[in-house]
Amino acid sequence: MDGSFAKPPLTGEGMHALAAELYPICRSLTGDGVRRTLARVAREVPLEIVEVPTGTPVLDWEVPREWNIRAAWIETLDGRRVVDFADHALHILNYSRPIDMVVSREALAKHVHTLPQQPDLIPYRTAYYADTWGFCMAHRTWEAMTDPEYRVVVDSTLEPGRLTYGELHVPGTTEGDILVSLHVCHPQLANDNLSGLVVATALAQRLLNGPKRRLGVRFVFLPATIGAITWLARNEAAVDRVRHGLTLSCIGDPGPFHYKRSRREDAAIDRAVAHVLAARGVEHGILPFSPYGYDERQYCSPGYDLPVGCFMRGVHGTFPEYHTSADNLDFIRPEALAESLSVLAEVLDLLDADVTYARTDGGKGEPQLGRRGLYRQIAGQKDQGGLDQMAVLWVLNLADGKHRLLDMAERARMPFAKVRAAARACEEAGLLEVVPDTRR
Amino acid sequence: MDGSFAKPPLTGEGMHALAAELYPICRSLTGDGVRRTLARVAREVPLEIVEVPTGTPVLDWEVPREWNIRAAWIETLDGRRVVDFADHALHILNYSRPIDMVVSREALAKHVHTLPQQPDLIPYRTAYYADTWGFCMAHRTWEAMTDPEYRVVVDSTLEPGRLTYGELHVPGTTEGDILVSLHVCHPQLANDNLSGLVVATALAQRLLNGPKRRLGVRFVFLPATIGAITWLARNEAAVDRVRHGLTLSCIGDPGPFHYKRSRREDAAIDRAVAHVLAARGVEHGILPFSPYGYDERQYCSPGYDLPVGCFMRGVHGTFPEYHTSADNLDFIRPEALAESLSVLAEVLDLLDADVTYARTDGGKGEPQLGRRGLYRQIAGQKDQGGLDQMAVLWVLNLADGKHRLLDMAERARMPFAKVRAAARACEEAGLLEVVPDTRR
Amino acid sequence: MDGSFAKPPLTGEGMHALAAELYPICRSLTGDGVRRTLARVAREVPLEIVEVPTGTPVLDWEVPREWNIRAAWIETLDGRRVVDFADHALHILNYSRPIDMVVSREALAKHVHTLPQQPDLIPYRTAYYADTWGFCMAHRTWEAMTDPEYRVVVDSTLEPGRLTYGELHVPGTTEGDILVSLHVCHPQLANDNLSGLVVATALAQRLLNGPKRRLGVRFVFLPATIGAITWLARNEAAVDRVRHGLTLSCIGDPGPFHYKRSRREDAAIDRAVAHVLAARGVEHGILPFSPYGYDERQYCSPGYDLPVGCFMRGVHGTFPEYHTSADNLDFIRPEALAESLSVLAEVLDLLDADVTYARTDGGKGEPQLGRRGLYRQIAGQKDQGGLDQMAVLWVLNLADGKHRLLDMAERARMPFAKVRAAARACEEAGLLEVVPDTRR
Repeated sequence: MDGSFAKPPLTGEGMHALAAELYPICRSLTGDGVRRTLARVAREVPLEIVEVPTGTPVLDWEVPREWNIRAAWIETLDGRRVVDFADHALHILNYSRPIDMVVSREALAKHVHTLPQQPDLIPYRTAYYADTWGFCMAHRTWEAMTDPEYRVVVDSTLEPGRLTYGELHVPGTTEGDILVSLHVCHPQLANDNLSGLVVATALAQRLLNGPKRRLGVRFVFLPATIGAITWLARNEAAVDRVRHGLTLSCIGDPGPFHYKRSRREDAAIDRAVAHVLAARGVEHGILPFSPYGYDERQYCSPGYDLPVGCFMRGVHGTFPEYHTSADNLDFIRPEALAESLSVLAEVLDLLDADVTYARTDGGKGEPQLGRRGLYRQIAGQKDQGGLDQMAVLWVLNLADGKHRLLDMAERARMPFAKVRAAARACEEAGLLEVVPDTRR
Repeated sequence: MDGSFAKPPLTGEGMHALAAELYPICRSLTGDGVRRTLARVAREVPLEIVEVPTGTPVLDWEVPREWNIRAAWIETLDGRRVVDFADHALHILNYSRPIDMVVSREALAKHVHTLPQQPDLIPYRTAYYADTWGFCMAHRTWEAMTDPEYRVVVDSTLEPGRLTYGELHVPGTTEGDILVSLHVCHPQLANDNLSGLVVATALAQRLLNGPKRRLGVRFVFLPATIGAITWLARNEAAVDRVRHGLTLSCIGDPGPFHYKRSRREDAAIDRAVAHVLAARGVEHGILPFSPYGYDERQYCSPGYDLPVGCFMRGVHGTFPEYHTSADNLDFIRPEALAESLSVLAEVLDLLDADVTYARTDGGKGEPQLGRRGLYRQIAGQKDQGGLDQMAVLWVLNLADGKHRLLDMAERARMPFAKVRAAARACEEAGLLEVVPDTRR
Repeated sequence: MDGSFAKPPLTGEGMHALAAELYPICRSLTGDGVRRTLARVAREVPLEIVEVPTGTPVLDWEVPREWNIRAAWIETLDGRRVVDFADHALHILNYSRPIDMVVSREALAKHVHTLPQQPDLIPYRTAYYADTWGFCMAHRTWEAMTDPEYRVVVDSTLEPGRLTYGELHVPGTTEGDILVSLHVCHPQLANDNLSGLVVATALAQRLLNGPKRRLGVRFVFLPATIGAITWLARNEAAVDRVRHGLTLSCIGDPGPFHYKRSRREDAAIDRAVAHVLAARGVEHGILPFSPYGYDERQYCSPGYDLPVGCFMRGVHGTFPEYHTSADNLDFIRPEALAESLSVLAEVLDLLDADVTYARTDGGKGEPQLGRRGLYRQIAGQKDQGGLDQMAVLWVLNLADGKHRLLDMAERARMPFAKVRAAARACEEAGLLEVVPDTRR
């Protein structure tokens, strides 16, 4: 990346428009849906597209066969199509094998998935490693299908091919990285997870347009589970650089934010997200780690134990639109996408600024602020947006080479920004210096 | 122990019947009462009876003289017995020295113990190292004794002899033991502590009838304080093997369970008992350690600091029957004894199963459950009593060679049994292995 | 110190009388006000008076010029004095430079400080390093001054001289010290901080009259901030001996006690003060550390991080009399001073007695109390003020060479005095011995 690539960051409307463009595409673990999706992202940011052949061993798994689908429908024996993949990508059971046959309604029933409690919605179902086929449809549609027999056609391929993922590394000045991971394998669903995709894209644009940072940021656009496992298996050096991380999921709905902590429960990322959400005063929930959810499952597996949490608005499985056709473009909102972007940017900024300080004078007693002009700056605090006196005192008191700025903000019960401003002023006045990180 | 000795475990009724058999015996720190009691237990389980001579130095103490009593009474000068040890063993102040004399009522009063607030009950009193004599009686009895003089007779001996205790070791496959300790020195009292004696006997029978276990279990049937001190002094190697321990006291009444934690407050035994009681949903109280109570005082003395808690139903000193003749065979119930046994068995089973696991594959990412048949087992969970999916995920996530199963159950907020089932299925599937214990 | 100097400790009335004597003196960071104040204290206790020349480098600072004031007033052009330093030392802005000129009311307004919300009170204001002048007065006075011009006179000097502070070390038998620090730079104010000065004086008298103690106590009577910095800079060896410390401020008002914890938050001093206040059952508040307040700011700076908390009744900035002429001799009470002294004496006694014990027998099992006479002492507890049985058991249980007496008292939830009495009885009985301190 040489900085020549610097589209301005997408706005809330721009993110929504990008989601709308990608919405109809039928994505899956593998195949052209993901490939087309990532290619579109690559027009926004310099995304590297990686293809990994079927059969490649990856940790305990191997890369599966590639699945592609051209068409699929159910028609009456007189040729009237009653369910058609062309109308909605959710109609096909993801990873259905090819078929073309006439079946009795009774036999068909075993291959039909509906939601009787939400009879107008199409469910999202997958059968990745099951060697079967199926259709998903509104329960009302199924109830209206009363013919004794139907013709079912699935024009799909399930063959050796490749698994596709995208990666973008925005390097920092140190070897540490923040990992931002999101899944790209869901078909025609908006919140889950086009929202994550478009916000990550805008976040990357923001970083590419901004000044060089201390920490690098590594974005990975992955098919869920197998994609994360594939990336982990192939990128030991990059994994080793991860200092903090987030998975993004369902961040386009207008509901409150949710954050699921990393396996470590009190990693810097866990405290940073909680701090930013609390300091903003927005409604939110902090959830303990559990080994169920998104790709944090892989990053937090015991052999890695990376400090990676999951950033959400709606929590998977808990909102009625989840994994149905109601998770559509109306469900996600430009202003919600923009707010999610803003929170994430603030979290990344906080982590980047979260360094350890030490007093240049050894820290004995309080330094004399007056002769360094800091008193004047403090005095002006209310009228001229000056420094916060208490923040200055806290920073000087805790700058012992052991406290990071977030430690200080937490102990002082102050917003990080105030503490950071105080620390920088003290640094400029020659009172503080940054202590280089030892790996942690 | 060769397994040839394996009476089936006593039922609740069986335990109550055994208590009834032992109830009338006058036990004390030493003497034939304890000897007869342990001999009866030895017909149920292969109890080793140990005799330690008077004067043997044991830690800071020495084994006291042996006390035996044949008869004791108070009679009117015309020969009518008004208080008789033959009626109730509590009538004699434990360790009374022999006497036969006529005394004024006034002089007698100094040797009479009653409970004015519970005028129908006989108190239990001892004078182990006091070289005195006395009688305990209902306050109403004492009030009715209006003669100016009485003849008092105590036909006892206090002479060099032996202290008697019982021990039974059910070995495990490792060198670690669970210590189960109970006091056997109380005369004609049921809950305190025939309940502990009969439940320990049944628990030992259960272990002797079951398969070999990881941890051994060592039962000690001891006179309180001096018995524990004697056992500790003489068994350094056995003490060294104790990994967990419990004293049992007053576990036959129908009240809620109580558990007093070990001096360490968060030892595995403390967490195990709390987990089992909470998972059962029974009413119970968890009490902090204090250096007052039963023989956990000795095990938790600073030179040992063994992880030994105290398992009770009624708490000493807090129920009205405590140390009175109302602590009788009606006060303890077969079903309460059976429930206490069941809880203790579950605690021992939990500790035995509480091993540390590690992933055989190094723990990078989640393993593929499908090709190992674990997915099928999970899928069947609701209908066929299969595995709990979340338990499997937690176990695979926490199997890092540092977490024991109880750690996992606590963190996952799941019953231990679910986590254990998940771990064993994963172990059978080759995903997990037990990490050998380093001593702790 | 040879004990020849031993005035009996001041009573509450005596402390109040001493405060009254010192009240009118105009103190400041430097100058004769402090000098006279410390000379008066030196007639009560053998205070060493230290003078440090202007310009001496002390940590990040240097000793300022010495300020002295003879007179200051505002008069009408016809010679009527409307505000006069002779009436109240607060009338002069502390560290005002000399001036003698006629100014318009408008120009004067910029140099006048009042409290419009408390129109009858004179505020206390300083301008230590500002090279300016000013007057403080009741708002009503200022409103009544309607002449177009006034003559202002400040007869002060601001010249090279010395900074004066006082120090008194009462040595102990070990090299560890308790630091008691108080500020002496406030002019005509009673609670802030003549209260601290007179209580510290009485506390020193108490120590000088008492037996030799384990810990030394070092009193420092300092001008705030620059005084503490000067003392720290010049006394590295003494600083190194500080094991615990307190700053004293505003301890003469009748309100509840407040204690601000040290930067460490759970140092022995923090726990000791909280224990004493709780055990007394008096109303009090415990405040977290913050780097704003008194000279604990310097002691708790990161290069020292000494365990020094701040002991107060009224908290600076929170009571209406704070830094006004209402902080006068009526605001402080003899009985409040006496109670503050009593609490401080108890804290110092506790710290002095807070040693680590170990069982002389290695701690295996409970020792036999009877043959050492401890049982008799316990038995007599209720009637004869004997030992508390539970305290004896706790002490014997926790005497493992790792617990101090305060640790024991906290764990046993008992007053320190009970635990100390039990420990001493056990020590006399040969059961316990004190474990020498390793530096901490």
